[in-house]
Amino acid sequence: MHLLVIVSKLYFLGAILSIIRYNEVGDHMKTVGIIVEYNPLHNGHLHHIEETRRLSSCDTLIAVMSSSFTQRGEPAVIDKFTRTKMALENGVDLVVELPFVFAVQNADIFAETAVRTLDLLGVDEIWFGSEHGDIAALQTIGDVLESDAYNDLVRRYLKDGNSYPTASDKAMRDLHPNDIFDQPNNILGIQYLLAGRHVNPGISFHTIPRHKSGYYDDIADGEAIQSATAIRRMMVEGEDISPYVPASVAKRLFGRRAVTYEDFHEPLQAILGRATADELYQIFHVTEGLEHRILNISSFHSVQHLIDQILTRRYTNSKVRRTLAFILANVKESDVPDFEVPYLRILGMNDAGRAHLNTIKKDLAVPLVTNVKEGIHPYLDIELRVSKLYSIASDIDVFQAEFKRLIF
Amino acid sequence: MHLLVIVSKLYFLGAILSIIRYNEVGDHMKTVGIIVEYNPLHNGHLHHIEETRRLSSCDTLIAVMSSSFTQRGEPAVIDKFTRTKMALENGVDLVVELPFVFAVQNADIFAETAVRTLDLLGVDEIWFGSEHGDIAALQTIGDVLESDAYNDLVRRYLKDGNSYPTASDKAMRDLHPNDIFDQPNNILGIQYLLAGRHVNPGISFHTIPRHKSGYYDDIADGEAIQSATAIRRMMVEGEDISPYVPASVAKRLFGRRAVTYEDFHEPLQAILGRATADELYQIFHVTEGLEHRILNISSFHSVQHLIDQILTRRYTNSKVRRTLAFILANVKESDVPDFEVPYLRILGMNDAGRAHLNTIKKDLAVPLVTNVKEGIHPYLDIELRVSKLYSIASDIDVFQAEFKRLIF
Repeated sequence: MHLLVIVSKLYFLGAILSIIRYNEVGDHMKTVGIIVEYNPLHNGHLHHIEETRRLSSCDTLIAVMSSSFTQRGEPAVIDKFTRTKMALENGVDLVVELPFVFAVQNADIFAETAVRTLDLLGVDEIWFGSEHGDIAALQTIGDVLESDAYNDLVRRYLKDGNSYPTASDKAMRDLHPNDIFDQPNNILGIQYLLAGRHVNPGISFHTIPRHKSGYYDDIADGEAIQSATAIRRMMVEGEDISPYVPASVAKRLFGRRAVTYEDFHEPLQAILGRATADELYQIFHVTEGLEHRILNISSFHSVQHLIDQILTRRYTNSKVRRTLAFILANVKESDVPDFEVPYLRILGMNDAGRAHLNTIKKDLAVPLVTNVKEGIHPYLDIELRVSKLYSIASDIDVFQAEFKRLIF
Repeated sequence: MHLLVIVSKLYFLGAILSIIRYNEVGDHMKTVGIIVEYNPLHNGHLHHIEETRRLSSCDTLIAVMSSSFTQRGEPAVIDKFTRTKMALENGVDLVVELPFVFAVQNADIFAETAVRTLDLLGVDEIWFGSEHGDIAALQTIGDVLESDAYNDLVRRYLKDGNSYPTASDKAMRDLHPNDIFDQPNNILGIQYLLAGRHVNPGISFHTIPRHKSGYYDDIADGEAIQSATAIRRMMVEGEDISPYVPASVAKRLFGRRAVTYEDFHEPLQAILGRATADELYQIFHVTEGLEHRILNISSFHSVQHLIDQILTRRYTNSKVRRTLAFILANVKESDVPDFEVPYLRILGMNDAGRAHLNTIKKDLAVPLVTNVKEGIHPYLDIELRVSKLYSIASDIDVFQAEFKRLIF
């Protein structure tokens, strides 16, 4: 054989090998993470999903989603399995559970554990919605939050008897006067950025401006994007939410029962009626004599009436709601020794999600849970308890559903 | 003055003094005790009260009454304050509470603590209703129950896997074949007799034959006396119970809500959904792995469905119901170190009851509680918890009522 032919054949072989190698390693499939609650998934969320896919050109979109209770301490308006289906039907490839013990927490812990979860799943980027829409401005706020000056000021304002949100707000105003820090999705976004700094500086963060700046707003006429709060209120009142949610969501929610905190009136009456101060004191979030404040309430004609009686300058609405959620779930401070992510629980996925999982699963630092049973991890056992409790209010038996095949 | 006149005057004075003395000490006011639940008070109970007063010729009739839950572990169909009023309106002079921790117990503990309570209140006699109506026959059964032969047999039958009621029934049949021991009010009566033997042999016991022998019977046409079970069922179904209860009771119960175990469906869902095995194991009555048996029940569509799933040969209906009551009230085994009567809590009285209390109160061995507050005794604190829980189902706020003036 002529030498040139051999050389050219070797070149050819080399080219083929390099193509194979490129496909295996070089042609990296881009994976993006988002942090969601979908309570319920509405047109604003769809916009976030679509813009994230378009702007990032990702191959796989992973959502980490709060389970049965939200970060603000409320029971989700609809069960987590239905919310998973809504996510998969609207552009998400893989839904991972943010467990109750991580989700029903201050913004910093919520953000930290959500970002850790996405990092374990190998995301390259995290895209979040924010009122501001400018990542650099949010990073600047992040710098302030991590400064000694800021933390000294917060401590001083706390000493003056302010709640944590008020103290941090005042400190921020002193150091960096603007209104970025006031808006809930900016606050969460900043916490994502801070979490990213120590979880994995290799993850890049991007933000998509939210259409609506409000969070608690009433329905504004003629707008296809409304606040989740307004949509939930409509659901509870049995009104038609189809103008404000994707068609698939409207279909899924049609005829379903909206869960609210009021559904837990009798359970809370029973639990608080029978609790001792010692038992209550051991519950996570119950601090500074809150157990006595709660037990001194002799009766309440609604959960809102209970919340109103607990509220003080220091115990904000979200703090009280989160506390009640932990009381309901009977989660003690000693039950949550740390915020390391101990497993990844898959709620649902499509083929792209499954392909991504197959790629990463051999190198995963924590167990992947697709078939739930008791005894895998204490946090998952708590999750099962939460599902039993959520089932009191839900029109589906969420506890039984935990053991069924995951959603494709 | 003539000597004879002086002597006759002295005689006269002596006679007056002896009359005064007779009235102070010798003319002992006869006090009789009865042990009741009045769930609700019906014509059979009225017959028991009237016959007791007539046959004993007592001056004062004292009732010790189960509080919010009965000996069989059920929530009372109507609150304890209304039941107290019904007692006072139908011939009882003084109503004392048998606390939850004593009432919701096996027949022997129920009887022992009720008899102790009446003994502390200085009763001369205790009169109870029974199917048999012959005190000597019941005493004979009592002798058998205290014999070694009987207790050996019970142990042997328990070893064979029988429930306690079955084992004791079999042992009794072996030693003393008759049907006296089968009937619930005979069983309680025998336990009163046994309690009397060691509490105070000075108390004499008397029995009044019950008109109806049944306990679980349906309403029998044309009879003014019906079983409490049948009357409760009618109350739940909103039927007219006035033929079967005194007029004052019919008036009191008109339009009132009948409480049943089903009212505690959601509370039990929440409490069992959130409980850990360790927590459940600590509850009084939870024995022999019952905590796992209960926690393995993934859901129940009614309290009856829950009870049906717990029942076994060993865990009888009453045992399961009592266990659920203690779970509801969150009463741990360590909360009830003994069955000494630590206080006497007066639920209501008339002038005769008050006069009797005034006579005995300076010599009382335990505190008399007429004004309830927290911290008097752990058993009374438990009672307040029970009242909070009972209020979930009751149309009156029983917890608030605890702190009001007692009933005259």
